[in-house]
Amino acid sequence: MNIQLRVKELLEPLQTVISVIEKKQTLPILAHVLIQLENNLLTLTTTDMEIEIKTSQIIKNKEEISFTVYAKDLINIIKKLPENTIIKFIINNSKIYIKVNKNSFELNTFRHQDFPSLPKIKNKKNITIKRKILKNLIEKTSFSMGNQDIRAYLNGLYFEINKNNIVVVTTDGHRLSIGKIKQANNSLNKKTVILPRKSIIEFTKLLNKNEHEEVNIYTSNNYFYLSTNNTTIISKLINSKFPNYLPVIPTDFNNTIIINRLDFLNSLQQASIFVEEHTKGVKLIFKNSQLYIFSNSERGQAKTQIKTKNFNKKIEIAFNINYLISILEKLNTNEINMIIPNGKNKSCLLNSINDDIYQYIVMPMRL
Amino acid sequence: MNIQLRVKELLEPLQTVISVIEKKQTLPILAHVLIQLENNLLTLTTTDMEIEIKTSQIIKNKEEISFTVYAKDLINIIKKLPENTIIKFIINNSKIYIKVNKNSFELNTFRHQDFPSLPKIKNKKNITIKRKILKNLIEKTSFSMGNQDIRAYLNGLYFEINKNNIVVVTTDGHRLSIGKIKQANNSLNKKTVILPRKSIIEFTKLLNKNEHEEVNIYTSNNYFYLSTNNTTIISKLINSKFPNYLPVIPTDFNNTIIINRLDFLNSLQQASIFVEEHTKGVKLIFKNSQLYIFSNSERGQAKTQIKTKNFNKKIEIAFNINYLISILEKLNTNEINMIIPNGKNKSCLLNSINDDIYQYIVMPMRL
Repeated sequence: MNIQLRVKELLEPLQTVISVIEKKQTLPILAHVLIQLENNLLTLTTTDMEIEIKTSQIIKNKEEISFTVYAKDLINIIKKLPENTIIKFIINNSKIYIKVNKNSFELNTFRHQDFPSLPKIKNKKNITIKRKILKNLIEKTSFSMGNQDIRAYLNGLYFEINKNNIVVVTTDGHRLSIGKIKQANNSLNKKTVILPRKSIIEFTKLLNKNEHEEVNIYTSNNYFYLSTNNTTIISKLINSKFPNYLPVIPTDFNNTIIINRLDFLNSLQQASIFVEEHTKGVKLIFKNSQLYIFSNSERGQAKTQIKTKNFNKKIEIAFNINYLISILEKLNTNEINMIIPNGKNKSCLLNSINDDIYQYIVMPMRL
Repeated sequence: MNIQLRVKELLEPLQTVISVIEKKQTLPILAHVLIQLENNLLTLTTTDMEIEIKTSQIIKNKEEISFTVYAKDLINIIKKLPENTIIKFIINNSKIYIKVNKNSFELNTFRHQDFPSLPKIKNKKNITIKRKILKNLIEKTSFSMGNQDIRAYLNGLYFEINKNNIVVVTTDGHRLSIGKIKQANNSLNKKTVILPRKSIIEFTKLLNKNEHEEVNIYTSNNYFYLSTNNTTIISKLINSKFPNYLPVIPTDFNNTIIINRLDFLNSLQQASIFVEEHTKGVKLIFKNSQLYIFSNSERGQAKTQIKTKNFNKKIEIAFNINYLISILEKLNTNEINMIIPNGKNKSCLLNSINDDIYQYIVMPMRL
């Protein structure tokens, strides 16, 4: 068995699929890419058994072949070559020979039948969504996912498909992000899943490629499928129940303070030079239409003040400064609302004025 | 005591001097920058007690002041501000107050008299050298310095000033780089020093700034001084004797092989995909005006061949592939000489055809 492929037919697809491969694999075959050619369709697949990514393209080559090769070595062999360079593959039982110009390489290969695969899409019911909208929805919310929390459901992104909207929620237990967009879905039943952190990273990469206007989403009981014209990512779901987040959303809007977002962000960034390594705490004092910001570390302290609108009450409250900064970086209007419910240690809400897609909830801390 | 300075007067000099500051200091004051204003000259100094860097500029401010402040905090406070922003410093005994716009900061300060300093230049005898020439000399040789070797003299760059030339040598015990440039020096006596790795990094940064045509070098018994119009770096020397490297230079030129540099480099880069993690070994076989290159790792093997000129003998030899690659990257002619002396395990010489400034010597290895 042998086949000739060109650098341009292999390099970009390889770069698309390689990031799923872990640095250390549980099985050696998981460091390989499965290369398949059938009916003029060249398909590359990688998997870590939790996520599978598959990308296909039509090429002018009528042959049929399936083989596996160590993905990183193949990328290293071809990455500096001109795009029309021909790569010749000769495949034996357990060896693969690659010839490029005057160079020849001998690598191990596995039986392509042994390449693990995740279940194919069966239920063809899908939703179609604009790539940019989904990209934003994930980008603006995924930062507050948990990371290696023992509560598995926190280490992912909650994705809820309803008849008329999609809701995305992430939380690490200290802060929570909600994104909610209108979307007419032809799925009649509500569907909720939790997507693991690693697949969110892969989805984001795919959604950042601006070659597609729209993407498709399919779900099954255990898997989530995201596909563009030529690439499909299949991700196992986190098998757990996402907590009911609705009671965390403030309902007492009496203390709603309007603040200039960039002034607030700049002041916090300055204050962040002097926060305790351990707590990252910053103190906010609202009074007389001013917001005073205080921070200190063992090296020194910072004080600053900015104007607020329509708010004269005195409130003293403290937060992890990084939580506030990351929220203010995601919001994008000039002015934002900060809602501080009455009562001790009630979660606060930040959102943009005139934009009801994103809501950010953050728990105060004791300083 | 107080003073007003502008962001543009502080930011660039701070960026110049801050890299000398170690992440962890033996003394807290070594994390500080010394800021001095006298006779319209604003000078910033940092040190780690081995290296001192000082940069000065004339500003429109007749005041006189000396104070220290934690350098990284100051850079963080000012780095995002418009260049004309005024920074107000109010200095007490042990506290310094910084006011910028509506922000105020309180930091610790030390007595400026306590700021450690390295000896000033006494012997005014110096050599002047074109910045670019010194930059190249260091850049093309410093890669083969030792790194944390117990033989202290290997962890630096040997710098020899003669009446008519400057010679630079580095070696890690497996390979050796020599750079030798003509340079009429007004110092009558031969002078040799070993410059530590960290100062080579600082020198390189300064020499990369293209604002100066020429730089000055001074030496004392224990220190080396490199200075431009506005910046001086003082470095302690490695207090040790550099080994006599002359016997290592091959004298048997019978096996002199001319090789196309980029062909050789590209082939080695391909071969380097399959070298043993531990040895990094590559095998070269010269025969019939060809150079055959072989490598292998636990994942596979690579073979390639390139033409050589004027050489038909058969020679088999092995090297650490990274040593060859780094030398071929430094050379810049189309063709290079590779000289392989007769006898077992004799060091080989690589140099450019028609360029006698740089010579690279590399020990073969047993595969």
